[in-house]
Amino acid sequence: MNKEWVAATIERISTWGKGKRGTSRLAFSAEDWQAKEYVIDLMKEAGLAVRIDSFGNIIGRLEGSNATAPAVATGSHLDTVPEGGDFDGIVGVVGGLAAIKELKSKGELTHPLELIIFAAEESSRFGYATMGSKVMAGTANLFAWNKVKDQDGIALSEALAAQGFNLEGINSAIRDKSELKAFVELHIEQGPVLEASETAIGIVSAIAAPTRLKITVEGMAAHSGATPMDQRQDALVSAAMIVLAVQEIALEQSHLGTVGTVGAMKVHPGVMNVVPGLVEMWVDIRGINHESIIEALQDIKDAISTIAEGQDTPVAIEVLSSDKPVLMDDTVKDSIEEACRRSGISYKRMPSGAGHDAMNMAHITSAGMIFIPCRSGISHNPEEHAQGEDIMAGIKVLTETLYQLAK
Amino acid sequence: MNKEWVAATIERISTWGKGKRGTSRLAFSAEDWQAKEYVIDLMKEAGLAVRIDSFGNIIGRLEGSNATAPAVATGSHLDTVPEGGDFDGIVGVVGGLAAIKELKSKGELTHPLELIIFAAEESSRFGYATMGSKVMAGTANLFAWNKVKDQDGIALSEALAAQGFNLEGINSAIRDKSELKAFVELHIEQGPVLEASETAIGIVSAIAAPTRLKITVEGMAAHSGATPMDQRQDALVSAAMIVLAVQEIALEQSHLGTVGTVGAMKVHPGVMNVVPGLVEMWVDIRGINHESIIEALQDIKDAISTIAEGQDTPVAIEVLSSDKPVLMDDTVKDSIEEACRRSGISYKRMPSGAGHDAMNMAHITSAGMIFIPCRSGISHNPEEHAQGEDIMAGIKVLTETLYQLAK
Repeated sequence: MNKEWVAATIERISTWGKGKRGTSRLAFSAEDWQAKEYVIDLMKEAGLAVRIDSFGNIIGRLEGSNATAPAVATGSHLDTVPEGGDFDGIVGVVGGLAAIKELKSKGELTHPLELIIFAAEESSRFGYATMGSKVMAGTANLFAWNKVKDQDGIALSEALAAQGFNLEGINSAIRDKSELKAFVELHIEQGPVLEASETAIGIVSAIAAPTRLKITVEGMAAHSGATPMDQRQDALVSAAMIVLAVQEIALEQSHLGTVGTVGAMKVHPGVMNVVPGLVEMWVDIRGINHESIIEALQDIKDAISTIAEGQDTPVAIEVLSSDKPVLMDDTVKDSIEEACRRSGISYKRMPSGAGHDAMNMAHITSAGMIFIPCRSGISHNPEEHAQGEDIMAGIKVLTETLYQLAK
Repeated sequence: MNKEWVAATIERISTWGKGKRGTSRLAFSAEDWQAKEYVIDLMKEAGLAVRIDSFGNIIGRLEGSNATAPAVATGSHLDTVPEGGDFDGIVGVVGGLAAIKELKSKGELTHPLELIIFAAEESSRFGYATMGSKVMAGTANLFAWNKVKDQDGIALSEALAAQGFNLEGINSAIRDKSELKAFVELHIEQGPVLEASETAIGIVSAIAAPTRLKITVEGMAAHSGATPMDQRQDALVSAAMIVLAVQEIALEQSHLGTVGTVGAMKVHPGVMNVVPGLVEMWVDIRGINHESIIEALQDIKDAISTIAEGQDTPVAIEVLSSDKPVLMDDTVKDSIEEACRRSGISYKRMPSGAGHDAMNMAHITSAGMIFIPCRSGISHNPEEHAQGEDIMAGIKVLTETLYQLAK
């Protein structure tokens, strides 16, 4: 296992899209394609047969001894958020290639191995996340995707057409359940849990799905100097109460792995000399325990009703999305745990708060994820960093897991 | 006293700058000058000698029997905020002209009377409020004003030059204390107090000066799904606590007339899937009791320290401005009260939470203000409205007050 090769390859990939602040390699951009081309060449050098599906997902395949056996797949993505880091997704692609090269060098396995580079994992450009794996799993929302445009007004269909793809034809990229035995994704944690507990590997038990709310608080805009305190309907005061209620309710549910966040807020008119008349706020609730999420949601709605009435500021709640958590496959989890134990590498089972391609692959095959620590849990940021030895431990566990599943 | 003439004149003035939403007649705009030209013609028709000072303040003068006696002045402004109403300022100009016409028709007074239209009362265009009266009172901040530009990049000096004025020459507009005996401004309340208490006239006791703070809360941006509740430094949670602390402290001080408002807040990065890493908020504290303001400020600082420490989110406080309340003159207040009593019009003494040209005029003469109710206290808004009979009551009291002071 070559630590230098892994570090150099991750660094080489970071050059496409490297800017003054972090790396910006948006889905389907020129930089994204250049990085993909580079890895395609590496795949071919390693003896993989490479094909590109109708949505731009890259699939590199190493045949096994049984020509009709389903493949054991690994992989992740190369696209980034704007001003992102060099490890989110990339570690899973480079680590997957390193694992397959290692397995190839040790002789033929029964099952084919596949390395997949999923297209458009980040939602930054078109507003939808994990698009490539959704296409592959047959859960793409073509009706919605046909309408989306990026910030420059370029439609998804145009971005695809520029590379010779056709949004209408993407159903040909759907994979049949019979083609795959399992999917294992190596990824940085993007949270602080492994680092804080000094654990090398996180075995993902389930991937949380976000429930998202838009909350609109209606007060009465009024002169901040001329309106006595007892004659106000200050929308921001009510909004502040809601922020603290979300925090308190999420804390109550946190022993079940549920988290709640008010990530965005807009205050209208938002000037110093006017009592706020309207506040819009966006809430993200996640967890792997569906009952806990439902309870948190109900508690938040109850708290908001009380605040709205007490403050005489009507509040509207719009549920933007409400998905169920996706459980990872028991066999894959056990294989990862077995690999950790055999290698003497510390591990813990943990949920993934962030979404990943593995949650879509779970619809069509047995899916699992291997997390490695990242510094201070920071991700989607130029400060994002994973240590070389942590990456190598992850690759070692991935290699062993793929071996157990494909041998 | 002609109610129809007053209503028609207010409506005629509203046509300059009338848009789809409210009236936009920004300081020194073409619409602002057109409205001023219209009133200048009305002043001349009424027999006033009109001059324009070096900052664009309009002064219409009716001589009295004593050529060397100081003038008794009234007036207000014609400029508006963007999408503003038709009564803020305008009532004081039209009402002042109506009062002087009425007094002229009844025969000569000892003192001269003046109607002043102050330039650039609203801060909307150049960020500074009551500029015209500051120039007249000799308190203009030429150093700062030399640098300001509007949102289109037009400097104040250019806006003045376009009308033939010269920012460097505005000191010639400073008026000597010997020129004026008193200044009385008629204005809509811009708050809900008079309407709620069914009182026709507010006799302003003092004009509150705002203390303004910019508060910056520093947390740690983190993935909203992957960061457990107990490992967060959520800047918005701390900011929400500060909003409620400001509210609570202002409520405690409200019996002394002090108010406190968080009017604006910006959340960074402000996206649904990131725990807020930084919040900027702007606080406005006002009152007429200086000790109460000082106490509120100290309490807010103490509360912020406690929140910053408890939440592990450092907070920086920047004091943007901190002015003292301006007391209105006793003689003028008593004259207004006497006028109300003689006319059988209900009144109450009350502070002004909003700033007005009268607070600058108080530096050079005995100043007072007459408030009339406005619907629901709404101002700086197309919904701003004052009833005809309330305006006429205000003009009656203004006329009587000017008479008492100038007779």
